[in-house]
Amino acid sequence: MPDIGYLNGRFSPLGEISISPDDRGFLFGDGIYEVVRAYHGVPAFWDDHCTRLARSAREIYIHFSFEPKAFHRLLLTGIQKSGYAEGKIYIQITRGVAPREHGFPVETKPTVFLSFREMNALPIELPGQGVKVITVPDIRWGRCDIKSLNLLPNVLAKQQAQEAKVFESVFMRDGFVIEGSASNIFIVKDRQLQTPERNHFVLAGVTQQHVINLAQEQGRKVQFDTITLDALLGADEVFLVGTTIEILPVVNVDGKIIRNGIPGPITCSLQQRFANLVAQL
Amino acid sequence: MPDIGYLNGRFSPLGEISISPDDRGFLFGDGIYEVVRAYHGVPAFWDDHCTRLARSAREIYIHFSFEPKAFHRLLLTGIQKSGYAEGKIYIQITRGVAPREHGFPVETKPTVFLSFREMNALPIELPGQGVKVITVPDIRWGRCDIKSLNLLPNVLAKQQAQEAKVFESVFMRDGFVIEGSASNIFIVKDRQLQTPERNHFVLAGVTQQHVINLAQEQGRKVQFDTITLDALLGADEVFLVGTTIEILPVVNVDGKIIRNGIPGPITCSLQQRFANLVAQL
Repeated sequence: MPDIGYLNGRFSPLGEISISPDDRGFLFGDGIYEVVRAYHGVPAFWDDHCTRLARSAREIYIHFSFEPKAFHRLLLTGIQKSGYAEGKIYIQITRGVAPREHGFPVETKPTVFLSFREMNALPIELPGQGVKVITVPDIRWGRCDIKSLNLLPNVLAKQQAQEAKVFESVFMRDGFVIEGSASNIFIVKDRQLQTPERNHFVLAGVTQQHVINLAQEQGRKVQFDTITLDALLGADEVFLVGTTIEILPVVNVDGKIIRNGIPGPITCSLQQRFANLVAQL
Repeated sequence: MPDIGYLNGRFSPLGEISISPDDRGFLFGDGIYEVVRAYHGVPAFWDDHCTRLARSAREIYIHFSFEPKAFHRLLLTGIQKSGYAEGKIYIQITRGVAPREHGFPVETKPTVFLSFREMNALPIELPGQGVKVITVPDIRWGRCDIKSLNLLPNVLAKQQAQEAKVFESVFMRDGFVIEGSASNIFIVKDRQLQTPERNHFVLAGVTQQHVINLAQEQGRKVQFDTITLDALLGADEVFLVGTTIEILPVVNVDGKIIRNGIPGPITCSLQQRFANLVAQL
């Protein structure tokens, strides 16, 4: 079966979907998105993604009625049509189509676009052996808590990582660790977890929250706190989290080896618990 | 005649042009743009726009061969096909079409999109009577010298202006005036012009540069310098410049009247000289 797309009420093969060049997503990045992973046909953590999608829309004044259950049925239909039980669902909502003027157009309906693709699992050695990262200055805008389409600095940071032959770039702002270009980050120190405090510079991650829940169920303390570069480099364990990467151990930051260069026990334990969680969805 | 579009080598009615939802302009705002004004069939200041377009592309590593003369012929053809001698030409180049991954796709060609529309002149009272503006915090990213498609903060700032019933929002960063959401700004003090120093937070404006040239031809001193809010509010004259607005006097900032609320003599003189300049193109 071909990859499946959905645009404003209609499913079709993804390759047949076309967007107006006057779509404000194309002209201004004036929209928001979510990536949802389907495990054995089930869109994982849909309530969380839907809540965040609605919040992102609200924060940039896109008026779109989110009926989580109806939207959930849409996802199930797309999964079924695509045939991808292990799937990557992309959801993008823009302010709609109108001749190019910066201010909001009047009476334009939001564009709702979805794609349903096969989830290509990461190379098996990544979650097993861990990845390298580099730190880069965070030059993004001041509202990274909104999952918007203005992703050029993320694109450039990810490319910078790839050219440095590492997996991810981690943004640093004012001396503090913020998040990856497409991931959240945790450190483990003295068996406690830390992740950067949630503010306008960091996205509240769905996988991040589930990892926090799993750690707390294990009786571990989890702190939202500022993390310096020294704290990152001196951590007992470091890992990235995200919808498509799940939990990835970090064994090298800016060329400096973390914890002998092998994934730590707490990271591995959380990977196992996360695998159990999604198996039971 | 309908509005005319151009996509990757082909002209067609704008309404018939469609973009792939996998275009990186749509997914990431991963692209750059220019707006060029045509006066009596002549694309104004094309060399300047083309140079800036090439620089923007280079800064984000979009590899596109800019042959200014061939591109100029393209603009002339579009103007002719559209029939708009007084036109607004929009040029957008994105990194191209590829399944969504942040890093640069390999072997993908840039998308080149142009639209040719009629230039709707501003209401006549705006350049004659001046406009009001508000100041807003600049929360944009750290490379506003690149004319990129990541324009969501500009969109939100322009909308904020419209809701405040003023013409434009002027970004303030670290206590200094930067530029408008879609314009550059000048102040006049003691018959000298000042405009914010050019750095990574401000776009080097094409109209801005021509206004500087005109002022210098008049024997006026023009300084690139930091401008505080106090300096803005206490200026003898304030004006905005841009491709579509040309030169617009500002007579009110944040509710405070500038210079008795009427356009100043130096602003008016520059408007006249700019009108002469474009008449002779």
